[in-house]
Amino acid sequence: MEQTRKRYAADLKSIMEARKRIAPYAHATPVITSSTLDALAGRKLFFKCELLQKGGAFKFRGACNAILSLSEDEAKRGVLTHSSGNHAAAVALAARIRGIKAHIVVPRNVPACKLENVKRYGGQITLCEPSLEARQKEAARIQQSTGAVLVHSSNDPDIISGQGTVALEFLEQVPLLDAIIVPISGGGLISGIALAAKAIKPEIIIIAAEPSGADDAAQSKAAGRIVTLKQPKTIADGLRASLGNFTWPVIRDLVSAVVTVDDDEILEAMKLCHEVLKMTVEPSGAIGLAVILSDKFKNEVRTNLENIGIVLSGGNAGLKLC
Amino acid sequence: MEQTRKRYAADLKSIMEARKRIAPYAHATPVITSSTLDALAGRKLFFKCELLQKGGAFKFRGACNAILSLSEDEAKRGVLTHSSGNHAAAVALAARIRGIKAHIVVPRNVPACKLENVKRYGGQITLCEPSLEARQKEAARIQQSTGAVLVHSSNDPDIISGQGTVALEFLEQVPLLDAIIVPISGGGLISGIALAAKAIKPEIIIIAAEPSGADDAAQSKAAGRIVTLKQPKTIADGLRASLGNFTWPVIRDLVSAVVTVDDDEILEAMKLCHEVLKMTVEPSGAIGLAVILSDKFKNEVRTNLENIGIVLSGGNAGLKLC
Repeated sequence: MEQTRKRYAADLKSIMEARKRIAPYAHATPVITSSTLDALAGRKLFFKCELLQKGGAFKFRGACNAILSLSEDEAKRGVLTHSSGNHAAAVALAARIRGIKAHIVVPRNVPACKLENVKRYGGQITLCEPSLEARQKEAARIQQSTGAVLVHSSNDPDIISGQGTVALEFLEQVPLLDAIIVPISGGGLISGIALAAKAIKPEIIIIAAEPSGADDAAQSKAAGRIVTLKQPKTIADGLRASLGNFTWPVIRDLVSAVVTVDDDEILEAMKLCHEVLKMTVEPSGAIGLAVILSDKFKNEVRTNLENIGIVLSGGNAGLKLC
Repeated sequence: MEQTRKRYAADLKSIMEARKRIAPYAHATPVITSSTLDALAGRKLFFKCELLQKGGAFKFRGACNAILSLSEDEAKRGVLTHSSGNHAAAVALAARIRGIKAHIVVPRNVPACKLENVKRYGGQITLCEPSLEARQKEAARIQQSTGAVLVHSSNDPDIISGQGTVALEFLEQVPLLDAIIVPISGGGLISGIALAAKAIKPEIIIIAAEPSGADDAAQSKAAGRIVTLKQPKTIADGLRASLGNFTWPVIRDLVSAVVTVDDDEILEAMKLCHEVLKMTVEPSGAIGLAVILSDKFKNEVRTNLENIGIVLSGGNAGLKLC
């Protein structure tokens, strides 16, 4: 295990420690099944409901682990993040639990329900232009004036360990999983899941689900190095970030495939989540279902995978009743 | 227990037998919690997710129990029901499991998603005018020509026993419940829940949630006899039926209060279910949350109830993304 920790940013031990740390605050989320969707996919599907996590997304696991891991001196200075939404709410909530201030830089184009979440948990919001540059600039300004500790949304060992707790639960709930499909953005969730799942069950297959309009992870895997995109274009607002130095090595080594799907496939999967699973799933959260139902998956990925875990990663989507 | 069975249509024994009978086919549904909604209600709330049941509603429990309880001779003739939707889908699915024909009389104004469910499970649909009279007339015609066995949606001992299995699970999952709030229509669900819950935990309080535009149960409790309404008017399309001779005695004796709420309170609760719980809940399914958040509940019902169970009874609502 020492070996793994040296090689990667997290390992089974750090992920088990994270689980213990966040247990009093985070939900152990349920797994649901649907014979209707099994029939559509031609396999047995198990949905890990991270949309039922605190704050409506898996992000709370990592943020809570990172913020509870801060020293007293660090914590006193407060925390800071810039995020497309779910990580922001998670940081605000975790900071409130720790009793410290959270400065949140949010791009103006974030969905209203995600901004509401940040407000609900008491985060101090600064709006900025919707570009990575603007976000980083504003964050740097706040950091300089307050000394707050930056909590990155994915490329951070404590974040990766926190997100890995999803896999610990999932494999306890459904030990027979042959594969887990995980949405990929900055790679924090899939890195943590891959490290935990492969340590527990080395033969398990980890598959990344990515929008074709933000396919930097697919391009990175093909090129053998981190590729970043200037203008990712997808309705999956949570899946536009790029890989980092902590997440990339895990994805390079432990993720078997990156399967991309178009926005219309993501929308169709969202609709199925609402109508069949009865779950409010945001586009980024529904992408795993889109992947398993795609022709690409049927044609390109090993077909002997029978029991498939799918992480419904978040549920912060606005809805209208009809 | 013999005593109870004589007095009421079901008892703990018949409900435990139902549980065993339906266990291979029905989901044991999860219970979820939300600190955001706890704060709104000023109490600890536990949501029993029957919208995640097969067919999207608790109805499958009763229908499955009733249809699996038929003799071989009865089963051969097929089954028949008239229903506003969820019971129809449940009967179709349970009949498919038993391998027999299901004739379903559906009023024309049923929501499209509920009709889709009946079709999905292979029910033989006959549309009729949206009145109880038209439904009964059409059902009688089919019964005469086919000999199919009528499976009533609520007023039937096997249906009541099946719905009661909700309470067996719920009290295992959350033994500390002080009260359970249950939507009331024909009374099958609340009768089963009251009989099971009171047998396990006699001090538990059972509260009915009813739309003010279809308040026949509230009127019945006040009058001490079954009152029926000519023209119930509410968006909760699943809560327009009347009590029957099997359900009424249980409601009269074991239900502490019927709390009514207006349609706008139901819509607000649906919205909270979507946004906070991330659940697709239909109006009839959200009414329990509407009740616990209502001024009426705060003013009229015992305030020392701390741990409240709420049955989210169904999720077959159409949705639009925004």
